[in-house]
Amino acid sequence: MQKMTVVQRFSRTFRENPSLAKMLIVFTVRYSLLCGFYRRECSGGGLVAYSEAKSDSGVNIVNSTEAEGKKKRVVVLGTGWAGTSFLKNLKNSSYDVQVISPRNFFAFTPLLPSVTCGTVEPRSIVEPIRNIVKKKNLDIHYWEAECFKIDAENKKVYCRSNLAGDSNEKEEIIVDYDYLVVAMGARSNTFNIPGVAENCHFLKEIEDAQKIRRTIVDCFERASLPNLSDEERKKILHFVVVGGGPTGVEFAAELHDYVNEDLIKLYPKVKEAVKITLLEATDHILNMFDKRITAFAEEKFKRDGIDVKTGAMVVKVSDKDISTKEVKNGGAVSTMPYGMVVWSTGIGTRPVIMDFMKHIGQGNRRVLATDEWLRVEGSDSIYALGDCATINQRRVMEDIWAIFRKADKDNSGTLTVKEFQEVLNDICERYPQVGLYLKNRQMSSLVDLLKDSRGDAVKESSVEVNLEELKSALSQVDSQMKNLPATAQVAAQQGSYLADCFNRMEECEKNPEGPLRFRGEGRHRFHPFRYRHFGQFAPLGGEQTAAQLPGDWVSIGHSTQWLWYSVYASKLVSWRTRALVISDWGRRFIFGRDSSGI
Amino acid sequence: MQKMTVVQRFSRTFRENPSLAKMLIVFTVRYSLLCGFYRRECSGGGLVAYSEAKSDSGVNIVNSTEAEGKKKRVVVLGTGWAGTSFLKNLKNSSYDVQVISPRNFFAFTPLLPSVTCGTVEPRSIVEPIRNIVKKKNLDIHYWEAECFKIDAENKKVYCRSNLAGDSNEKEEIIVDYDYLVVAMGARSNTFNIPGVAENCHFLKEIEDAQKIRRTIVDCFERASLPNLSDEERKKILHFVVVGGGPTGVEFAAELHDYVNEDLIKLYPKVKEAVKITLLEATDHILNMFDKRITAFAEEKFKRDGIDVKTGAMVVKVSDKDISTKEVKNGGAVSTMPYGMVVWSTGIGTRPVIMDFMKHIGQGNRRVLATDEWLRVEGSDSIYALGDCATINQRRVMEDIWAIFRKADKDNSGTLTVKEFQEVLNDICERYPQVGLYLKNRQMSSLVDLLKDSRGDAVKESSVEVNLEELKSALSQVDSQMKNLPATAQVAAQQGSYLADCFNRMEECEKNPEGPLRFRGEGRHRFHPFRYRHFGQFAPLGGEQTAAQLPGDWVSIGHSTQWLWYSVYASKLVSWRTRALVISDWGRRFIFGRDSSGI
Repeated sequence: MQKMTVVQRFSRTFRENPSLAKMLIVFTVRYSLLCGFYRRECSGGGLVAYSEAKSDSGVNIVNSTEAEGKKKRVVVLGTGWAGTSFLKNLKNSSYDVQVISPRNFFAFTPLLPSVTCGTVEPRSIVEPIRNIVKKKNLDIHYWEAECFKIDAENKKVYCRSNLAGDSNEKEEIIVDYDYLVVAMGARSNTFNIPGVAENCHFLKEIEDAQKIRRTIVDCFERASLPNLSDEERKKILHFVVVGGGPTGVEFAAELHDYVNEDLIKLYPKVKEAVKITLLEATDHILNMFDKRITAFAEEKFKRDGIDVKTGAMVVKVSDKDISTKEVKNGGAVSTMPYGMVVWSTGIGTRPVIMDFMKHIGQGNRRVLATDEWLRVEGSDSIYALGDCATINQRRVMEDIWAIFRKADKDNSGTLTVKEFQEVLNDICERYPQVGLYLKNRQMSSLVDLLKDSRGDAVKESSVEVNLEELKSALSQVDSQMKNLPATAQVAAQQGSYLADCFNRMEECEKNPEGPLRFRGEGRHRFHPFRYRHFGQFAPLGGEQTAAQLPGDWVSIGHSTQWLWYSVYASKLVSWRTRALVISDWGRRFIFGRDSSGI
Repeated sequence: MQKMTVVQRFSRTFRENPSLAKMLIVFTVRYSLLCGFYRRECSGGGLVAYSEAKSDSGVNIVNSTEAEGKKKRVVVLGTGWAGTSFLKNLKNSSYDVQVISPRNFFAFTPLLPSVTCGTVEPRSIVEPIRNIVKKKNLDIHYWEAECFKIDAENKKVYCRSNLAGDSNEKEEIIVDYDYLVVAMGARSNTFNIPGVAENCHFLKEIEDAQKIRRTIVDCFERASLPNLSDEERKKILHFVVVGGGPTGVEFAAELHDYVNEDLIKLYPKVKEAVKITLLEATDHILNMFDKRITAFAEEKFKRDGIDVKTGAMVVKVSDKDISTKEVKNGGAVSTMPYGMVVWSTGIGTRPVIMDFMKHIGQGNRRVLATDEWLRVEGSDSIYALGDCATINQRRVMEDIWAIFRKADKDNSGTLTVKEFQEVLNDICERYPQVGLYLKNRQMSSLVDLLKDSRGDAVKESSVEVNLEELKSALSQVDSQMKNLPATAQVAAQQGSYLADCFNRMEECEKNPEGPLRFRGEGRHRFHPFRYRHFGQFAPLGGEQTAAQLPGDWVSIGHSTQWLWYSVYASKLVSWRTRALVISDWGRRFIFGRDSSGI
């Protein structure tokens, strides 16, 4: 404190002469330094490091400082992968950013299955959002609240604090925005199957993982109580995992390892009663992966004694048993008692997003749609990214007439190669399915496609097509369109993409860098979002992992597990979480997993 | 699995010929080895290592094996300091031990205040009780249940499983015992002050510490919400600690460090609103410590801005504010709003123990009383230790006649020095207050005391006293009696003492080693329990700790903090917890404490 006396003296000077501060602001060269001092004075002490100084405006949003008043207000809903990635990559200080989320931390969700069995501690994979934004020298404020209504018409979001407080406190917060970034994620999808919401565990939040961990240990303790029949013991120790996707498979594998490496040592007499069942409605588990991976996983699970039931659709979950129906063979329904069910079948839209969709005319859709620039269709200043939205890629066929007209500069009614080549890059950028189609058909350019569709091998220069010919050439192109998977990778890339757009908003307003507007004038401000797939892992337990990397490169086994360790360690959000997760892995290797019921 | 085939073959042989097993038991030299095989067969698998084999009897307690039938059944209630210390030190394999506790782990409670602020993670200070007993080659079974009734008459305890289970499961468990070890600890004492139970946080269990941590972060998040008045913000960030004992003081100090070292960096704008108040009903905090420590602590807290209010008795806690009454000066009542109250004023007796006390005729006592051998008064086969009981040290004056008669071997009506010296050690052992009195009066033997009381300096050999003279000589002795403090140190020493008694039960039955039975014949089987005080720490925050070590040696400051680190690290229950706690401390030094709301 002694060291900061000079600062405190400065502060007092400013406090007593507010005009002095204003005057000094004129010397813009020193602006940021002074701002640091001035704001520090607001917070009433000199202990705050400079890096935090700028996030220190008054709480009452309406009466913010003059400088801030001119700033565009950006409201970010959510602190998951998309929201956090946006915040981490935002560099432009001309925004006043409000982050609103019911969770004051970012969670590294790909390690959630590891948390369920104590391989990694929950706290090792979370980082306070305030810590993340503190490092950035920007106006970013965080409020722990949950948005329950988006009013696109008046550019307001309605939020509610979910913190315990007495009724005197104003729990409802209404926040104005200029730009809204919706990154609220999704909820677990129960498909309205009766009993799922009441009796199943989910695996989306940190709290879910903690609850699963406690339940596993509870099941083992319950099964160890005296005076139970063998049947009851088997029921309690029957763990059912619904959903053969990467999360369900990883959880089943983790659970198998936890049981066999740690729990049976402490609960030897119930060992025989443990059973893990994995239910999958389709024909194979991990069906989004290469067939080699699926086969390896199914074989490994069989060896491990995990009962994989494919083609089994859950129809009901009571508090005691779970009923499944065979998808084929007449659809026989069978019922089995269980001790714990983990539901991991996919995601659904949150109610607040559903409500918002109704208001902006997307009521008949199942998922919130954005354009290729992540802007919500029908709301110019709202962006949506991550699991709460999908990109509604425009079809070439919808715009074929506009494309033709734009390319046909001389209005001749036909396109020459020259004319065509001038818009070629724009077409491929605006409609990535075109590029994909060419790649899959092993053609190098659109001209080949046109030639191909005309069926003759005339010289390039003589290719000239009319609208109908263009239509027929591009007719198959839209079949290449695919929705992006709901993964952390997609969300993070979208967040970083959007931040980049916000960083260069003014610049790109003046010099648009995007493709031609086929249905309008000029160019789009930005390049559209383009996802780059870096591959996907499927940990299978027993220190073995499968990986499918770009170019259909498949790798399975112990070495891939080490690749997994390195990739995940490097991707963690901070050095703190990195150190903690690595030490958690080390602890597990040395001491095994803990089975205390906390 | 392959390696164990021989074992499995053995197992099958035994399973098919149970008589073979019985026959083999005759060969007692190989008894324990065979027992290992036989039991392994019960569990139905060969994977179990030998160390666990013996803890593997059938679940149904009534139908245990013949060999076990002969074993005395010991039931241990509780897995805190006393119970765990008992289990860790038990070596005698001639008992069949059942451990029953609602918590399946042992928690290193002295680090609980560190858990409240995230300096140490909760999981780093717990060790599964199954892990602790697994290492011992004994018949120890653990059941996660809570005892709700002790039936001393029929030697049964009634327990209830607190695990979620459907109604089909038998939740009530009745367990027979030959010896019962009650080590259930205590509850927080609210002194029936209105509102305390509903509105205060306690600091006894791991869950309490986790809840406090979440509440601290919640308070900071709530206070950061917009549209709050300064007054509301101050209320939310007013942390009140009730009780100026070591726990309350340590928590207040930890909280101050957490706020000033970590939280204000992330919540700079609410910094000014934070206030910590420490309420203590007596005149000073830490009043069981040396005055130097008290003075240092009060001075340090004043410097730190912690508001220490002594002489303030809490009379009511509502959901918004806490009312205190001045103990002196007319007892003015004042009320202050708060954000969180932590109640740490002392311990009370659990309802199940109260109920038990009524049944064994201790209904008019406040705490369960045991004799100096930790046996519950009025129940020969029940032992009670730790916070749930106190040793009712027998007064010399009650037994003075018996002592005199026993010492006066020739029934002469007077005691000679020789006669007296023969029983001297026994008196000092049976009535430790005698030794303490001599030490405090700086006398070397009882003879000096007698001489002193007679007021003449006659030669030793000529001292001869009658009953009345002995009475007056010893009349002040009982004033030295003091109850043991309710600390982990006492509980651990009691557990280890009792285990040692159980280990040598048979041996001491034959060759009693205790003091003379003054009111009976022969000697007591064991030496009575004697507490050795190794000193006590009071961490004061800012890397400073006060320590009061035996011999009234006082040490305060940074070096004592390092002593604290070393002692606590060395006292932790396992290498795992040791490694985790040390890495937690390291993490805190490097990265600070986490503020995620989980």
